[in-house]
Parts: sequence; structure tokens; C-alpha cells
Amino acid sequence: VSDIRELTDVMRHFSEERDWTQFHDPKSLALALVGEVGELAELLQWLPVTGIEDRVREAALNQRLGEELADVLLYLLRLADVLDVDLTAAADRKLQANAAKFPASTYRGKAPERS
Amino acid sequence: VSDIRELTDVMRHFSEERDWTQFHDPKSLALALVGEVGELAELLQWLPVTGIEDRVREAALNQRLGEELADVLLYLLRLADVLDVDLTAAADRKLQANAAKFPASTYRGKAPERS
Amino acid sequence: VSDIRELTDVMRHFSEERDWTQFHDPKSLALALVGEVGELAELLQWLPVTGIEDRVREAALNQRLGEELADVLLYLLRLADVLDVDLTAAADRKLQANAAKFPASTYRGKAPERS
Amino acid sequence: VSDIRELTDVMRHFSEERDWTQFHDPKSLALALVGEVGELAELLQWLPVTGIEDRVREAALNQRLGEELADVLLYLLRLADVLDVDLTAAADRKLQANAAKFPASTYRGKAPERS
Repeated sequence: VSDIRELTDVMRHFSEERDWTQFHDPKSLALALVGEVGELAELLQWLPVTGIEDRVREAALNQRLGEELADVLLYLLRLADVLDVDLTAAADRKLQANAAKFPASTYRGKAPERS
Repeated sequence: VSDIRELTDVMRHFSEERDWTQFHDPKSLALALVGEVGELAELLQWLPVTGIEDRVREAALNQRLGEELADVLLYLLRLADVLDVDLTAAADRKLQANAAKFPASTYRGKAPERS
Repeated sequence: VSDIRELTDVMRHFSEERDWTQFHDPKSLALALVGEVGELAELLQWLPVTGIEDRVREAALNQRLGEELADVLLYLLRLADVLDVDLTAAADRKLQANAAKFPASTYRGKAPERS
Repeated sequence: VSDIRELTDVMRHFSEERDWTQFHDPKSLALALVGEVGELAELLQWLPVTGIEDRVREAALNQRLGEELADVLLYLLRLADVLDVDLTAAADRKLQANAAKFPASTYRGKAPERS
């Protein structure tokens, strides 16, 4: 399922079937998201920077990374749904805002500053 | 753009146009993802649990939540791309694994235990 | 060891003894910190809000929470050390800044707003 | 204040004076901790790995890092307090467990594997 809205529906249906929506308040889902981001971080933390592109492509690690990335995505969609946010529309707005905020000609090769 | 693969391509193109791919190693992108998850957490942290469903639907907060959820999504897609993970396929596998691991009949109304 | 500076020294010595300082660059340590925060989040995420004060005091969970809180603390001290930050002094400055920014008389019962 | 227990008491007193303890349930405090970890991550995310040791010692950035590290510490102590965890004792136990689990002779120069 490659469509964000469809995948959101799948997750909602999955949760409703198990009567898990009672656990899915915003704060709890946000913590669940944090938990999955943490598992992703643990897979990356001690990888040496040199050669990391090859390491993450090794089959076993790449599979584990895919699992954690998927967990992050699925909780993110679930959280957006519970927050009544249309994530596809929000991403479109953000892409437009970023294009306006960071013109390619000005920002080429320059990381955006964080204040 | 509602398709995960298309949105991934848009993000890659956006980064290449600005020559930002040099900053997009796995650890840096993972930290950027954490930064956006942190901003999302800050929007939710002090909301009272009672009535939170209404609060997050108020226009100003809902808009801000959408912005942060979108940021998390966009960095997640960028990270998956850099890690050479097909996030759509990974999510499909995870959905199948979850359906097998948590049969609706056994897990109805029971949050999955964390060890 | 209840002293932040002493505990920082213990962690540095522990890392040097194992020649782990080579892994302890700022980004890697930050990801390790995120990993431990994620484990803490996973322990809390599905606890019901009602009665959570009692649940977290149950011996088995309280012990697990202590382990994860300790992991977060130890990586935090290690990261501060590697960043050459005197965490005790930084905390003192922050406490003073917070006392000035949030006078008790003005902020009694009001959560600080996040922009 | 360099003593963890003292600093915990200072934070409790600060919260009680402002009647903020009503906001300091475990999930909300965990999200606040995540928010501060996110701000720390944002300061580090785009720093180039080469020369990062010098960059983080530059006065302006070092001061900002100290502020965010302090925020993480203060919320961590507050969360431990609310969870009724003696963080000093928990850290001591963890240090002992780590010393037993990772003998220096076996683990010299080897990052601990994550499963």
C-alpha cells in the first residue's frame, strides 16, 4: 500500500478490529512513535560514519532498518489520524513552504541554520 | 502527493537541487527526524488529557500539528531513501507480520505488552 | 554516586577503559541517548492515565523505569562531557533563568506556553 | 547544585511553588523530555563530522548546547521524581551491571552489539 490515505485507513481498521483505539490517545501514540524512533536510533548509533552507506545496505541490517522505519511510519499515520490531520495535505503545504523559504539558488550547498 | 514513492522522489529531487544530499548521511537525518518528533512532542506535552480530542482540532493548533507531522514524514521518507529501504514494501511486510502476531480474536481490547 | 561531576568522571573512566571513546562522537552519543529515551517511552506508552501513579510504583515496572532513566542519565552525562559542557553549571544557569522567566506569582497554575 | 538528589528537590520545589505538579504526570513529562532531546538534536544535526569537536566548543554553540543539555537533565530528574525512582541508586545499579556485562578485557575497542 503506497498511498498515505489508504495506509491510514488500513491502520485505523486494524486498531478498531482489536479495540485498540481506546489506547490511541494523542500522548500515548506520540510516546509510541518516540519508542520506534528510539529503536531506529539504536540500529544506527554505533555504525562508523566511514562506509556507513555500505553497512546499511547489508541484508540483515537493511531488513531491520526497514522494520523500524515502517513502525515509525505506521504510528505516525495513526497519530495524524487521531489528531484529525490530513497528512497528505499537510505535506503538500510544507513542500510548498520549503520551496518558498529555501530557494535553490540561495541555499545551494548551505544547510539551513537552526536558531 | 499522497503516494509514498512519489513523495520520496520529490524529497530527493528537492535535496539534490539544493546540493543538500551532502548533509543527508544516516545519522544526521536520524537526528533531524528526532528534532521534528521533539517539536511535535512540545505541542502535545501540556495539553490536558480530558478534552484533548477537541483541543487538537482547534484551527491554530491543528495547523501547527500538521506542520510538525509533515516534517516528521518528510525526514522519514528522506532517511528511508538514503538507507535504501523501500518503505512501502517494508510497511506492507510489517502490516502482515502484525496481523499474524496480534490476531484480533486474542488481542481485542488488550494493549500489546512491552518487555 | 550522587554527584554529577563524579558520575561524569566514572562514565569517562568506564569508556576509556574499554577504548569506547572512539565511538563517542557527539552525533552517535545523541542517537544513543535517543535510543534510551525511546525505551523509557515504551515502558510508559500504554499505561492508562487513571491510576498511573500506582502502576509506576509496582516493583517490577519501577525497577525497569529506574534502569531506563539511569541509561538516559548516563548517556546524557557522557554527551555533556564529550561536548565539553559543565552540566552542573549549565543547570544552575538554567534554574536561575527559569526563576526569572517564570515568576511564581504570574505563572501559578499556568503551564508555560510553547510557541 | 551538583548533587542529583539536591537538584531533584530544587526542581520539585520549583514546580510546587508554581502549582505545576498538576501538569507533571509521567506521560506529559516524558513528552517534555522528548521535546528537549529534540532541541539538542537540532543543534547537532547538520554539523559536519570532521572538526565537530572544535565546532561544539565555539562559545555561542557551546552555550546553546549547555542550555539544552540542562533542560534534558532537569526534566529527567523531574520525571524520575514523579515516577518515585531514586535515580542515584538506579545509576549505581546500572554502573555495576554494565561493569559485569561488559568486562574491559573482552569489550576493549568493540561497541556493544544491539539486537
